[in-house]
Amino acid sequence: MAVPELHPLLRDRRSTRQYDPTHELDDGVLVQLLEAARWSPSAGNSQPWAFLVARRGDEAHDKLVGTLSRGNTSWVPTASAVLISLFRAGADEDPTFAYSDYAAYDLGQAVAHLTVQAQASGLSVHQFAGFDHARVAELFAVPPAWQVTTGIAIGLHQPREEESRPRVRREIGEFAFSGTFGTPFTP
Amino acid sequence: MAVPELHPLLRDRRSTRQYDPTHELDDGVLVQLLEAARWSPSAGNSQPWAFLVARRGDEAHDKLVGTLSRGNTSWVPTASAVLISLFRAGADEDPTFAYSDYAAYDLGQAVAHLTVQAQASGLSVHQFAGFDHARVAELFAVPPAWQVTTGIAIGLHQPREEESRPRVRREIGEFAFSGTFGTPFTP
Repeated sequence: MAVPELHPLLRDRRSTRQYDPTHELDDGVLVQLLEAARWSPSAGNSQPWAFLVARRGDEAHDKLVGTLSRGNTSWVPTASAVLISLFRAGADEDPTFAYSDYAAYDLGQAVAHLTVQAQASGLSVHQFAGFDHARVAELFAVPPAWQVTTGIAIGLHQPREEESRPRVRREIGEFAFSGTFGTPFTP
Repeated sequence: MAVPELHPLLRDRRSTRQYDPTHELDDGVLVQLLEAARWSPSAGNSQPWAFLVARRGDEAHDKLVGTLSRGNTSWVPTASAVLISLFRAGADEDPTFAYSDYAAYDLGQAVAHLTVQAQASGLSVHQFAGFDHARVAELFAVPPAWQVTTGIAIGLHQPREEESRPRVRREIGEFAFSGTFGTPFTP
């Protein structure tokens, strides 16, 4: 069985911590990243995602940097932009909203599409969870129906040293099953 | 401001219901789709995803088709394969598991990476939620810690008629914000 290569946009992606701290994100490229998220699929086309946009040097960025966990303060601010992702967890102001069961999942998809587009634009994305979610909700006046989820650092990869962690994953047979759950998939 | 084109793998993706019912999915291509999911990022590399794999004509496929909602019985079985996605919602057998807050989100990312790879292989993916989740859990002996999430139909798009629904999305300013939540992002 010949297994073809992964597409280079997936194969070469990695969550780097090494960004060019002088790189400025072009407006058009940033809009295009949001376009990629925009056109991702979602349950019943519910599009349950939102993003807070901050760029290195602006006020929103200063606020976000102040909420970072200690481990993230060294590298996140060197990225050109940081987005905060949110999904719609509740339906307080719109009782017809019917797809919240898949809202976190669909947000993940939207961010993955954004990541692929970033890769295609020569940029790198590193998502992170280490920041004060409640403080971000407060600083950015996030309504209760929306769940602050991940931070998304976007920038130009600037290799300075070997990335410390090799990319490792479980084998396919450990997560893909034939017949009952737990029976390794064999093609 | 010049906004570049979306990458064709994202631009041309759509959730079709029109599959070639005679197309057989190549083993290597199927493995490669799972590879794409495998290498997607996740919180702390938790990889909280699993997939039940069924191909048109096998026993797992027969079982899955029996759980489809009425609206999905006409088109899902014409796809070459159906995967059921699951995320790890709980930690019953592994109390060290620490990333369930992002498990649904990370599963969504993995499925998005799989979708991009399918697109690169000339295939189409259509996710669906209309099936009996509890029945699938029972038929496939899914442990309580795992949440049956979406169905993923994969096949060769065979256009027979105009797709009935044009792709529509909210404008960027409706989901991307500068400063406080709700203030449209303007680059």
